[in-house]
Amino acid sequence: MKPVSAFLASIVAVGIASHAHANTPVVNQGISESEVVAAQKAWGDALVAIATTYDNKGHAAAKDLAGKIIDAAYGYQFGPVLFKPTLTIAPLTFRTTREGALAYFVGGDPNYPKDTGFALKGWRSVEIENAAIFISGDTASTMGNVMITDKNGKTTTVDKTWKFVKDDGGKLRIVVHHSSLPHSGK
Amino acid sequence: MKPVSAFLASIVAVGIASHAHANTPVVNQGISESEVVAAQKAWGDALVAIATTYDNKGHAAAKDLAGKIIDAAYGYQFGPVLFKPTLTIAPLTFRTTREGALAYFVGGDPNYPKDTGFALKGWRSVEIENAAIFISGDTASTMGNVMITDKNGKTTTVDKTWKFVKDDGGKLRIVVHHSSLPHSGK
Amino acid sequence: MKPVSAFLASIVAVGIASHAHANTPVVNQGISESEVVAAQKAWGDALVAIATTYDNKGHAAAKDLAGKIIDAAYGYQFGPVLFKPTLTIAPLTFRTTREGALAYFVGGDPNYPKDTGFALKGWRSVEIENAAIFISGDTASTMGNVMITDKNGKTTTVDKTWKFVKDDGGKLRIVVHHSSLPHSGK
Amino acid sequence: MKPVSAFLASIVAVGIASHAHANTPVVNQGISESEVVAAQKAWGDALVAIATTYDNKGHAAAKDLAGKIIDAAYGYQFGPVLFKPTLTIAPLTFRTTREGALAYFVGGDPNYPKDTGFALKGWRSVEIENAAIFISGDTASTMGNVMITDKNGKTTTVDKTWKFVKDDGGKLRIVVHHSSLPHSGK
Repeated sequence: MKPVSAFLASIVAVGIASHAHANTPVVNQGISESEVVAAQKAWGDALVAIATTYDNKGHAAAKDLAGKIIDAAYGYQFGPVLFKPTLTIAPLTFRTTREGALAYFVGGDPNYPKDTGFALKGWRSVEIENAAIFISGDTASTMGNVMITDKNGKTTTVDKTWKFVKDDGGKLRIVVHHSSLPHSGK
Repeated sequence: MKPVSAFLASIVAVGIASHAHANTPVVNQGISESEVVAAQKAWGDALVAIATTYDNKGHAAAKDLAGKIIDAAYGYQFGPVLFKPTLTIAPLTFRTTREGALAYFVGGDPNYPKDTGFALKGWRSVEIENAAIFISGDTASTMGNVMITDKNGKTTTVDKTWKFVKDDGGKLRIVVHHSSLPHSGK
Repeated sequence: MKPVSAFLASIVAVGIASHAHANTPVVNQGISESEVVAAQKAWGDALVAIATTYDNKGHAAAKDLAGKIIDAAYGYQFGPVLFKPTLTIAPLTFRTTREGALAYFVGGDPNYPKDTGFALKGWRSVEIENAAIFISGDTASTMGNVMITDKNGKTTTVDKTWKFVKDDGGKLRIVVHHSSLPHSGK
Repeated sequence: MKPVSAFLASIVAVGIASHAHANTPVVNQGISESEVVAAQKAWGDALVAIATTYDNKGHAAAKDLAGKIIDAAYGYQFGPVLFKPTLTIAPLTFRTTREGALAYFVGGDPNYPKDTGFALKGWRSVEIENAAIFISGDTASTMGNVMITDKNGKTTTVDKTWKFVKDDGGKLRIVVHHSSLPHSGK
């Protein structure tokens, strides 16, 4: 089906004059690419902040910060979040609750005895390299590599997928987070 | 709930370095304000095109063009379109079918005997003044005044609401269109 | 393009056995048809409630209720609402602010001197007859007739378009509302 | 903020009578949970179909079927798909193109020399166990385990995330697919 412009091409000589004014009050609940990139960067900053807080102020302070970050950056207030962290194992692979996410980041929860606190591992920088971004409606998904470097300069690379939704306050929240170590190839 | 940045404010001195790369392949099925304004302008251009075609080439040509424009600009391929034209009356007020829309624009359909062809009335320019725009997900709604001027310089003003969705080809299509003459105040 | 099932038809004899379990925790931010119909009915109930409160308890009580209903049923907390009430006239046709909506429903606002309080007119029942409904993503639009009957048995019919979005709490909110008297046909 | 019903509770005695008719023509571009589960099952059926076709009819037939299934079940016509298959390795981890997806499923593409054809491994049944589903607008995401069993009765379990969008024809298409082997715990 050809666009309107194709039909109009032959009649352009008549001097059509239609105008639509911009500068109108706009509510935009959609998501832009720059909002996505900013939300990814905020996640990286938050991980480094938890690690640094742990090193400087101890576990209680790191746990407190991690809880606040989860509340600010994930969508657990909507219900279950589809969170598969990098290092979890069955039967506690999927962390659909806030409690499970917090246990993963800072450990110390007897219900998640194998969690040692991923965010406490001395992280100092995060680099995100998207393979592609897919924005549809009020959601945006990203997939790519995330490179996390610790204070000794050692870098861990993961394959990561995120899906964000925009909440009523205009803030992006993570509702899907699948992270995995690269396949060994063996 | 405070944003992540608020939590990070006190620790900025640690020199956080996280980066998210842009320049990524992106699919964006959302709708921008400029796409909305362009789609409105296209509607105005199309109305003028039909009117001009009628004056220059007659009814058959105008009807043919109107059909193509409806197919290109409205969403009848999805199912019923919520179309309440300015001048329709009960029991044929709502034109949820393509046939009903075409009858309204160019008349001549015995199933819609009171339709005289709104798009045939000598229109030469269209001006659109939005009161507000609301974009949510893959839809965008506008409300405001549309001023349509004919070849004699007479202007008709209507109150108009549109809702657009973006189709799989990336084109905005009208799925809601409510137009009404201003209330007389009596 | 044929669906997968078409490709599978010829090989059904091999006894494929794939299963997807349901009974899973689900967040659903989409909108169902029954939610739309319930929200429409709630609007009708609210109009009758304001009218009845006015008759029984006076203007202050009606205004208080109307404010609460606007806060509960419309989306002014998101920003401008695209509201074109039935009886407003230029230059105050569009009521994109909460203040403008309240003035329309209960009058008494010197900034809207011609508003006499639409919701105060003795309404006792509301009937809604949709011509069509269009649900796309987190939005749902309706168009049709609304018949409002007062305590004297007199019915007013309007052509009405609504667009609802679902807020973070799962509640539908009106973000577009275009109401107009039927065209006189003259 | 209390819902409308709370305000109406005290005035229920007045006998409010508002009605909204259902049985209306409806376009619904949203996604239901049952559509999601059906699309997952279709993916499992398709994998088994490719494997069985390969065993019975050889590589060319399997490749032909795989191509048709990719065209029917994924969203490559929209642009890049966010596809991280289970066994890919850098620098060809992410298969954002149709070519890359086809190479993964059936191998034999010199541009993807390490691909040996995941769909050719004798699969006979697929079981899907969702940890949670998140539906937002015209998108639906799932996360959970997928258990794939081959003709020798050996089962492979993966952690899998999918995101579906509904196309203009009403069909769900995969636009995000992240699959990973469970973390070894070491």
